[in-house]
Amino acid sequence: MTDAFLVGAGQSGYGAFPEESYRSLFRTAFDATTESVPKGLMASEIDEAFVGTLGVGGRQLGLSGPAVTEHVGLDGVPCTRVENACAASGFAVRQAVQAVKSGMADVVLAGGFEVMSDMSSDATKYWLGVSGETEWERLSGTTFAGVYAQMASAHMERYDTTRKQLSRVAVKNHANGAKNPHAQLGFECSLDEAQSAPTVAEPLNLYHCCPTSDGAACALIVSEDVVDEYTDDPIRVAGVGAGSDSVGLFQRDSYVGVPASERAAEAAYDMAGLTPEDLDFAEVHDCFAIAELLAYEDLHFCEKGEAGALVESGATALDGDLPVNTSGGLKSKGHPIGATGAGQVVEAFKQLSGEAGERQVENPVRGLTHNVGGSGGAAVVHIFEKETAVSA
Amino acid sequence: MTDAFLVGAGQSGYGAFPEESYRSLFRTAFDATTESVPKGLMASEIDEAFVGTLGVGGRQLGLSGPAVTEHVGLDGVPCTRVENACAASGFAVRQAVQAVKSGMADVVLAGGFEVMSDMSSDATKYWLGVSGETEWERLSGTTFAGVYAQMASAHMERYDTTRKQLSRVAVKNHANGAKNPHAQLGFECSLDEAQSAPTVAEPLNLYHCCPTSDGAACALIVSEDVVDEYTDDPIRVAGVGAGSDSVGLFQRDSYVGVPASERAAEAAYDMAGLTPEDLDFAEVHDCFAIAELLAYEDLHFCEKGEAGALVESGATALDGDLPVNTSGGLKSKGHPIGATGAGQVVEAFKQLSGEAGERQVENPVRGLTHNVGGSGGAAVVHIFEKETAVSA
Repeated sequence: MTDAFLVGAGQSGYGAFPEESYRSLFRTAFDATTESVPKGLMASEIDEAFVGTLGVGGRQLGLSGPAVTEHVGLDGVPCTRVENACAASGFAVRQAVQAVKSGMADVVLAGGFEVMSDMSSDATKYWLGVSGETEWERLSGTTFAGVYAQMASAHMERYDTTRKQLSRVAVKNHANGAKNPHAQLGFECSLDEAQSAPTVAEPLNLYHCCPTSDGAACALIVSEDVVDEYTDDPIRVAGVGAGSDSVGLFQRDSYVGVPASERAAEAAYDMAGLTPEDLDFAEVHDCFAIAELLAYEDLHFCEKGEAGALVESGATALDGDLPVNTSGGLKSKGHPIGATGAGQVVEAFKQLSGEAGERQVENPVRGLTHNVGGSGGAAVVHIFEKETAVSA
Repeated sequence: MTDAFLVGAGQSGYGAFPEESYRSLFRTAFDATTESVPKGLMASEIDEAFVGTLGVGGRQLGLSGPAVTEHVGLDGVPCTRVENACAASGFAVRQAVQAVKSGMADVVLAGGFEVMSDMSSDATKYWLGVSGETEWERLSGTTFAGVYAQMASAHMERYDTTRKQLSRVAVKNHANGAKNPHAQLGFECSLDEAQSAPTVAEPLNLYHCCPTSDGAACALIVSEDVVDEYTDDPIRVAGVGAGSDSVGLFQRDSYVGVPASERAAEAAYDMAGLTPEDLDFAEVHDCFAIAELLAYEDLHFCEKGEAGALVESGATALDGDLPVNTSGGLKSKGHPIGATGAGQVVEAFKQLSGEAGERQVENPVRGLTHNVGGSGGAAVVHIFEKETAVSA
């Protein structure tokens, strides 16, 4: 089985772009991606594509993959839309890895997009709700923030996690996002501000919730047969893991963890032969502040119940032992649903290529990305490893 | 790279089932699938799943894959929804093949489902429209039947294809469907009936259009490492091909063919090292009668413009040289959008296993399935080959 390599990744800005369409945003991301390939890559060299989108607003619900790949000139190239809610393009990246490893393709584009900013707040509530369980969650009035609020309450109750610790996630991620020119909310916030924001869903306040965003992101995965044509500094996809779970939170045994994340992480560590100690940075799915804390535990960055203390210790800050969400995360960088997973890979690519600017981690060799669908109905984890540094 | 094998496939009935949900239909298909495996297969042996659905009606638009796989007990197993409109589960089967060939999974479930019968005709028109191009086709009032009507008109104009030839597709497929206990419209129709039905979209009449359907179907794809555990009569996935195209018909150079189908077929023949002459039967995407005629040409069963004559000759009837749509096709068996591609594989499995009852083709060795998304924005072709017969 061939190894798979990440040779390029790029994105549009995340934010509200009334002048753009889902197609134009995807083109921006696609162009940034091909331009990021060290030795260059022509669209005509792409064998296959996977595109993730939830299809918020129903603009192009069917065939939304080919609708964007044809727009960027991938004439005739097989394109498959994958959708696992907020993990849509994380799974698109995973499919690209499978396509390469299957020997059926050498150069595969994985991307995602979403346009959310032109909807009313009621429409947004509806469309976010579709990532929850429809019949017994959404139709009975549960909002997406409400689902994560229940998880936060449970974690606070069980482990004495505090609102202040939740707010520290926001402070950290805004500090990082302020260094990312692609971030939607690219400004710092103080602990006071993050503590005193209006409540969205008790105990989560506005600073504990990511924004709704427009945006697109892509990554290029290639086989070992062709990797030398595209780069002299290969970044290997060392590990990939995925897991699923009941879509409805109410169907699960526990609210204080995301079993799909844990399964995905264990599979990825196992495939890579690595442990969390081997990582130099991680991009985790912080749609709500509690989600980042759960990720610390599910990805085994710390023991169960210790995530609040971990963020408080500064270990996951940009200058900490394991910087988390150097991009700003979903909280500050933004969360255009279908783009988010591929966007995390963009940050991994930038960090491992030494092109993360002011937020650059020092000489990173290995990074992890973690993308969750819904409240944990699906999760996918990738571990990327710089080959040259490892052998050097 | 490992070979991939089809070891089981099963489906629910297709039709209108007001007492069923998308989950219960999927369970019926899943149970039929595991029971069809010659040496048996436990749900716990499944490593991964791909589920295709358009999500008609928006019941569970996000995470609709895990929503059904968790329901049938695939706890924690990675599940990815794939969507390429009416080709959703044809692409799910293709992803299962890639997953197996990648070495990342040994036993993979591919399936699909749709529930359509409980919608008003306006809602149906909306939801079918999402498989067309949204901004310039759907929102400007083009229906799905209207898109295929344009293709029919173009073919009739260019090649003197007749309404009678279109009607012969319906007569043939209903004759086959009448022999299929799972068919939604399992009755024969006369050429007179198929000629004199009310117009839906000129020149297509009611007998030139498939019904809307509820239903689910699944298939099991395994690696060569484990195939012996499941069957003594392996059916190899000899060829897989896929192609994409502009989603809007109006964006294409020609209306008298589906380039994505042709690309998919050529890739599948190439991978299999086979030609159409090697096939013993085929299931093709006949959402409208014209679509079956276009398929004959795109899949190289005949030259361009000769499809009308081919169906008229009887060559594609059950007792012809190359029986097409022995199941009844989308026209008579039914077309629950997300289930259709996997449902075609169910027919291939039954034929190659000698379990197609009254519609059994004599000793078939190779069969092809062909699944189209929208009016040709995506297409996928599989070629299945019975190993024992080949080596015998």
